[in-house]
Amino acid sequence: MSERKRIVIIGGSAAGPKAAARARRMDENALITIIQKAPDLSMASCGFPYYVGGVIANRNQLLCSPTGVVRDPIFFMNAKGIVAKTRTEALSIDRQTRVVKCRDLGTGEEFDEPYDRLVIATGSIPRLPPVPGVDLDGITTLQSMQDADYLRAIREEGKIKKAVVVGGGLIGIETCEALHLAGIEITVIEMMPQILMFLDWTLAKLLENNVKDWAANVITDNAVAEFLGKDGKLTGVKLSNGTELPCDLAVVAIGVKPNSDLARDAGLSIGKMGGILVNENMKTSDPDIFAVGDCIEINNLITGKNVLAPYGDLANLQGRVAGENSINDNAAVFPGTIQTGVCKVFNYQAGSTGLSERAARGLGLDIETVVTAGPDKPGFMGGLLLINKMVAEKGTGRLLGFQCVGPGDVSKQVSIAAMAIQGKMTIDQLVNSDLPYAPPFSLAIDNFIAATHVMQNKMRGLFKGISVEEVKRKLDSGEKPIIIDMRGPDEYESMRLGIGERLIPLGAIRNRKDELPVDKDQEIITFCKISLRGYEGARYLQSLGYTDVKVMEGGIMAWPYPREK
Amino acid sequence: MSERKRIVIIGGSAAGPKAAARARRMDENALITIIQKAPDLSMASCGFPYYVGGVIANRNQLLCSPTGVVRDPIFFMNAKGIVAKTRTEALSIDRQTRVVKCRDLGTGEEFDEPYDRLVIATGSIPRLPPVPGVDLDGITTLQSMQDADYLRAIREEGKIKKAVVVGGGLIGIETCEALHLAGIEITVIEMMPQILMFLDWTLAKLLENNVKDWAANVITDNAVAEFLGKDGKLTGVKLSNGTELPCDLAVVAIGVKPNSDLARDAGLSIGKMGGILVNENMKTSDPDIFAVGDCIEINNLITGKNVLAPYGDLANLQGRVAGENSINDNAAVFPGTIQTGVCKVFNYQAGSTGLSERAARGLGLDIETVVTAGPDKPGFMGGLLLINKMVAEKGTGRLLGFQCVGPGDVSKQVSIAAMAIQGKMTIDQLVNSDLPYAPPFSLAIDNFIAATHVMQNKMRGLFKGISVEEVKRKLDSGEKPIIIDMRGPDEYESMRLGIGERLIPLGAIRNRKDELPVDKDQEIITFCKISLRGYEGARYLQSLGYTDVKVMEGGIMAWPYPREK
Repeated sequence: MSERKRIVIIGGSAAGPKAAARARRMDENALITIIQKAPDLSMASCGFPYYVGGVIANRNQLLCSPTGVVRDPIFFMNAKGIVAKTRTEALSIDRQTRVVKCRDLGTGEEFDEPYDRLVIATGSIPRLPPVPGVDLDGITTLQSMQDADYLRAIREEGKIKKAVVVGGGLIGIETCEALHLAGIEITVIEMMPQILMFLDWTLAKLLENNVKDWAANVITDNAVAEFLGKDGKLTGVKLSNGTELPCDLAVVAIGVKPNSDLARDAGLSIGKMGGILVNENMKTSDPDIFAVGDCIEINNLITGKNVLAPYGDLANLQGRVAGENSINDNAAVFPGTIQTGVCKVFNYQAGSTGLSERAARGLGLDIETVVTAGPDKPGFMGGLLLINKMVAEKGTGRLLGFQCVGPGDVSKQVSIAAMAIQGKMTIDQLVNSDLPYAPPFSLAIDNFIAATHVMQNKMRGLFKGISVEEVKRKLDSGEKPIIIDMRGPDEYESMRLGIGERLIPLGAIRNRKDELPVDKDQEIITFCKISLRGYEGARYLQSLGYTDVKVMEGGIMAWPYPREK
Repeated sequence: MSERKRIVIIGGSAAGPKAAARARRMDENALITIIQKAPDLSMASCGFPYYVGGVIANRNQLLCSPTGVVRDPIFFMNAKGIVAKTRTEALSIDRQTRVVKCRDLGTGEEFDEPYDRLVIATGSIPRLPPVPGVDLDGITTLQSMQDADYLRAIREEGKIKKAVVVGGGLIGIETCEALHLAGIEITVIEMMPQILMFLDWTLAKLLENNVKDWAANVITDNAVAEFLGKDGKLTGVKLSNGTELPCDLAVVAIGVKPNSDLARDAGLSIGKMGGILVNENMKTSDPDIFAVGDCIEINNLITGKNVLAPYGDLANLQGRVAGENSINDNAAVFPGTIQTGVCKVFNYQAGSTGLSERAARGLGLDIETVVTAGPDKPGFMGGLLLINKMVAEKGTGRLLGFQCVGPGDVSKQVSIAAMAIQGKMTIDQLVNSDLPYAPPFSLAIDNFIAATHVMQNKMRGLFKGISVEEVKRKLDSGEKPIIIDMRGPDEYESMRLGIGERLIPLGAIRNRKDELPVDKDQEIITFCKISLRGYEGARYLQSLGYTDVKVMEGGIMAWPYPREK
């Protein structure tokens, strides 16, 4: 090793510059070089949709330090003593001689960049559907600064009126909002039965309803069969069911794959999902080479299995670890992720942390789930609705997952749950969580805590829950359970499901026992707006000896199907 | 015990009704009675300041269920089968015969209320200063619904122009804002050297500066010596330093004491702080009697010592536990508190969880502290400032406490920290926290995570911190450390401390080595706006061989003293 350690970092978006900056703070004398293919550095790529949508006025805001200095090679040299070579491609890694072969994309000149420690932060590549017409003009992704510039220019020009967003994942939904803000009529196409696959179906459907109410058409269970064009320009999208949607623009956001070819070609170990394999020091199969960000596979802390988790926050944390370890061997660890995420969807937010029910059942875990709903703060302080789903492990009682959607403060709820999962806390502990309470910020019993109370009640057998999906399935298959809406008459007048329910307000049920079925084994389903009164009523029915009382979880607020009114 | 268990609950504000409702859900056949001295039930007393300030339009909103039904005795009977006797005083408890002696305050009639299980939820009593004039007209507390009605009427009348709030604690500060919203000129008097004693001095002072900027005068280090009056009416407040403040209204908010006389008279064990002693089942020294809410002492989960924690959220959690245990012996536990709280203060929020530095040092704990500052989300998404203080235990690295003030989303940050403390997490774990990130909600490295990074750096000796107080003390005592502001020239022009600092921007320091002192042991203090660049600069100076470089923690944003500009 040379006297001054040579640290080379391939990739200059998020994880790479973070690794470089951390390495610098660990060793002022190290020679640190960033090799970046794109012309820009440290792009806030999670901000691209907000730039496209006009929320961010100025392109430079995506590239600036917090004090407004554009993070260009001059900034990196002056503020951090880091050489940043932009428009420079890393062609190959020679691990024997410890050299990265590079090409200056401006001059075409090739050169060698020798390293003592190498950090690979090559990011991800957007997937494209293997269908005819995918090369037409008017089809783009939203992955690079250039993509963002392209879509922003479309916004500025104001000519395009109709667009299709292919893919209802996080980027797709954010792009949908951005293009809507640009005055474009949007249809979102998703080949799965729901958008945002990190959510379970019901919550995703509630969100989809909201997207449809606001602005955009959403088509699920349908893939793109073909991009239609004329004279090389996109004119429409043909779906697998034959539908043709005319449009001048299509943004493809069907996911990304790790950009790991450089590592693969260098003989580094690659995982089953195509990501570079690293240990918790972010070290690859070569002890002198680290890898960070979207190009790697990381450990899911709950399942112990490798996952792809291409999130900007994790990229930064991994970069910090690799940067430190590139100077001080094995000094820092990044143990893994619980796959926490959130996004803004018009006036709603949607977030998730840990395992969804789908993921947990897929792993064969023995779980309990519960759906709850309620406002994020008191009504008198303008509280807004949250709909939650909680997943916990039977036996241990450990919280495994939490999802939340709604106009309320989802991000805070998911943050609370994420820390609870990372602290390996159980439902029995969480029911007494001590959170900051004041009326401007939360309910006296916070939404998250209330969900743990319901989960505890369910785990102890105080009530049997039934999901809205299961109720719908029963109705669709012709079953006739007795369904009791336990709200007040005024509420019933202004909004109702119309699924054959009877109205017996909780406040009247003790005086209307005679209206209940004679058969104590008759199936009865109770609910109210959020199913708190539904639960209280169910407890009362159980005390009368009814043996098959179920509470429809989340109440009307969790009902994603059409209502009578 | 009678066939139908008789549960009597003394107190109908927060913990009492919660206990009653939970008991009902555990046992439909129990006979449940609430004895409530006040005319109202289930008052959202934490909402009183917002009612006084006009944020809450309607008195009933404080008394309603989420669906708008006033929680009066008819509601309790119909919806929950609970007898609520309002305007009824519990005079004494006869533990031998298991009877509560009561008086109907309307008729004056006395009667016996027999119980199998008793829950005491008698709340707290506001303290009053033992000074002359305390009985004058125009002096009130903000503890009861009647107090809230009185102050709301003052708002409606609009006659009073000047008021003094005695006490700069949570209620005092909320009252200050409420009266300001009512168009009243306010002075807050606090006998301690700072407002909001749950914060350490610097953060409290930053908040105080903001209160002063907005509206209210704040006088610390001064007690009320006398209330001045004329014809039985308040005309002013005289302070211990002799200052006289004319005013027509004084709201006393110098804290509360547990209302435990009934329990004490019944021979139940009372703690050193005057609260009823309970175990984690919320059981008093009498196995048939529970106590919950502001009238009890509870366990601090970090210190293992008893504390008074009169918070509405904890009262509800305790009520749930006592309600359950009153039916099923020892079925539920409430293990204690970490004393988490938050309040809104004009455009700022202030919150705290766990131990402050003051509290931790008072306990003799071996701790590290760090002050950090930064926005709650990216600048391009309208991020707002947060100033944090973190306390961790040396050795174990366990997070012990976290405080946060600022215009940003304090409540979320404190929620995250509260869960981390309750999960007994260490700084080395927390540096890799997986929180929900998207630009509308947080930074890629969330404010809380950034604070753990700084704490980890400090604990590992990567930098030496110095607090703003210590810098001020040095300057006041005539010391002349070299102080370097590492921001840019534009920033320096628009805002500067003016404490003898030199401007050497981080981006220029590698080329301006010659301006640094020859003596490598010279004390050097670096800072910037939030001291991130100050830290990077300090690392550079250390690499040059400087042995005594300190980073002024939190930078200019944490400087609570006057600035040059």
